[in-house]
Parts: sequence; C-alpha cells; structure tokens
Amino acid sequence: MADVAILFDLDGTLVDSVYQHVLAWRQALESAGIQLSVWRIHRRIGMSGGLFVNALLREIGMARLPKHEMDEIIKRHGEAFVTMKDQVRPLPGSKELLKKLNELNVPWAIATSGTKMTSQPSLSMLEVPDTVPVVTREEVSAAKPDPDLFIAAAKKLGVPVEQCVVVGDSIWDMLAAQRARALGVGLLSGGYGREELERAGAYRVYDDPHDFSMHLDEIGVREP
Amino acid sequence: MADVAILFDLDGTLVDSVYQHVLAWRQALESAGIQLSVWRIHRRIGMSGGLFVNALLREIGMARLPKHEMDEIIKRHGEAFVTMKDQVRPLPGSKELLKKLNELNVPWAIATSGTKMTSQPSLSMLEVPDTVPVVTREEVSAAKPDPDLFIAAAKKLGVPVEQCVVVGDSIWDMLAAQRARALGVGLLSGGYGREELERAGAYRVYDDPHDFSMHLDEIGVREP
Repeated sequence: MADVAILFDLDGTLVDSVYQHVLAWRQALESAGIQLSVWRIHRRIGMSGGLFVNALLREIGMARLPKHEMDEIIKRHGEAFVTMKDQVRPLPGSKELLKKLNELNVPWAIATSGTKMTSQPSLSMLEVPDTVPVVTREEVSAAKPDPDLFIAAAKKLGVPVEQCVVVGDSIWDMLAAQRARALGVGLLSGGYGREELERAGAYRVYDDPHDFSMHLDEIGVREP
Repeated sequence: MADVAILFDLDGTLVDSVYQHVLAWRQALESAGIQLSVWRIHRRIGMSGGLFVNALLREIGMARLPKHEMDEIIKRHGEAFVTMKDQVRPLPGSKELLKKLNELNVPWAIATSGTKMTSQPSLSMLEVPDTVPVVTREEVSAAKPDPDLFIAAAKKLGVPVEQCVVVGDSIWDMLAAQRARALGVGLLSGGYGREELERAGAYRVYDDPHDFSMHLDEIGVREP
C-alpha cells in the first residue's frame, strides 16, 4: 500500500464555524421569505449553497428557486456570516495536526464547499502555507456530495484519490469520499452524531482534530 | 391504561432556539476564559447551566468552578441570549399541536431547564395560556437529567408521572424521562441525531412538533 495523503474539509473539521454558518443561512433564507427550522439547515450544511437550498425546499414541498434568487440568498449568507466571523476559532488541535503532518511528510490539501470569500479568514487563522493546495466551490462544477472537490484536491497533490483519506464533519463529506473511492474519516466537531457519520460510510469517527492526531496510525500514518 | 398526559420540554422542542442558546453559552464561557468547542456545548445543552458547565470542564480536564464564577457565566449567557432572541421562532406545528391537545382534552405542561427570564419570551410566542402548568429551573433543586422537573410538572397536572409522555429534543430529556418512569418521545428539531435519542431510551422519534402531532395515536391519544 502506497503512502496516504489527507484531504481536509474546512468548516467544522479544522475551524469551529458550523453553528455560525447555520444561523447565517437561517437569516439569509428568512430574508428571502423562506422559513426553515435551524436543525434542517444544520443537517444540509456542507453541501454547496445552491444544492442545499434546493434540497431543503424540496423537503418542505416548495419549488426550486430561479438562479437570481438563489444568488441573492448566497450573497446574504456571506454578508451575515461576515458579521459573526470574529466568533470563529480553530478547532482544538487543528494547527498542531497540520504541523505534525508536515513534519511527517504526509501530503495534505483542503477541499471546501465554501467560497474563497468565506474560507479565506479560516485559512489565515490556521496559518495554512501558500504551498498547500486549496480547492473552493468556485473551482468545480459540482459540490459535495459529488466527489469533484476531493478529486480536484487529490489531483493538485499529484496523488491518486484512492490513496487519500478524506477528513470531514458532515455526512456529505463521507458520501463524497465513497463516491471518490477514498476512505472517509468523520469528526464530531461539526455537531453531527457519531451514528450518522458511521451510516454514511465513515471508516473511523473521532471527536476533533486533536483526537484524530492521536490516532494517525489507524489510517496508516506511522510516526517515528 | 389510563389516559396520557404530555410533559413538554421547551427549547428545541416547541421553539427553535437551541442554536442561539449554544452560541450564547460559547460567548459567556469565552468571556470567563473558558475555550470550548461549540459542538460540545450543543451536546450538553438541556442540562441546567451549572451542571453542564461542570460536565464540560470535566470533559476537558479542568476543575469545577466556584459558585460565584458559575453565577457570572449563567448571567452572561442570559445577556448574550437576549441579544439573539428576536431570531427565535416557534417550531413548525407547535402552536397547532398545543391547540389540538386542548381540543382533545389531553392535559399538558411545560418543564424546562431554562430560567423564567429566558423562557418567558418563548411562552408568549407560543401563546401558552396561564392555566397551563410551567416548571422552570428555579422551582426544583436538580435539573435534567434528574427527573425533578418532569415529576414537578406531572404533580402540577395532578397526573401520576408514570402515565405521562415526556417530549424533548435532547438525550437529557430522554434520560430524565426514564428516571421518572415516564415514556420519552424525541424530536429531531434540537439538532441531535435520531440514533442518539433512540440510544437514550426514546420510545419514538419524530422530526418536530408537526410530525409528532401526525402520530399522536402512537402514544395512545385517540382522535375522534
């Protein structure tokens, strides 16, 4: 078995931003006259904005939105999130984990359904070096649970995606990992239940980046 | 079998306020120098403030707080929550459900780990009549997962607690229901996973108050 590479989701996986994103989406949707319970938004987060709004509308029996209305909601989500971004913190152990992977020469990349605008503050907070491949929503035509984001990230690393471990907090990450034929590792730090992640195909589930970094041997990374 | 009575939790069960409470606790804890991931707070919510802060501190290996520091955090949570309370909405179907129970002559009460101050706006929003028994944190010495809140609510209704169905969104509601020898019904509207609620002893799990009101026959309420 060749050496593994790691493809990280960002929100809820490396930074503690899911709940702020959830409330920002609630505000954006309500301002467009769409009333949705917060837990339903939480359960869909991690999909791209467009995909997840349409999935939610279907769930409550409403019609799809035309593109300009969708774009307006996505814009308002970005604006509402920016007002809360000062509350966002790195998840425990995330910076140390990324440093450790560098020391162990384990290649890693970031693949997020977020846009450049919403993900930039998180990347700075984590001190992600410019040399690390980052794939955002703009760069692929289909977001999670389609595998495109992770496939693009593996390509940028120059590693076959079947050799990669996808680390994410949502069931959409786990489903996208399966579709890419990568191995999925779930983290509880996005607020989903362990069983939800396991049922979506997670090979292993850990609490957060710190807990994951204590168990790297379980995915085939050997420490000297 | 005698007729059933229903004991409702409030936040996440009848009103869509869990995520705002979670972020208000995060702010209050951080202002006291305590850094905790948001998902850990979410997983503990529904316990009383004091109990859940100490449980979280134990989880991250910190010592218990002295009472005056705890009181200060609880006060700051209340203040932070008040700034977000305009975003809180009734959950789908909650007002209709309560009206339907009145029409069917099913006795019901509310038992919340929240204080009078944080729960009053929600009770007004739901138009809960003054004749309905409401038990808040101040009225019992031990909050959920201790069964005291539900036992006190059953007593106010004049119904044996073994004859009651406890409806809540958190595993603490389900555990307290078991300890009270009541039947627990879980709702997903607080953002927990179905399996978490089932594993905590839920007799049935529904999406939200609307979904519950479609299945009242499953708990023994007969509609004419």
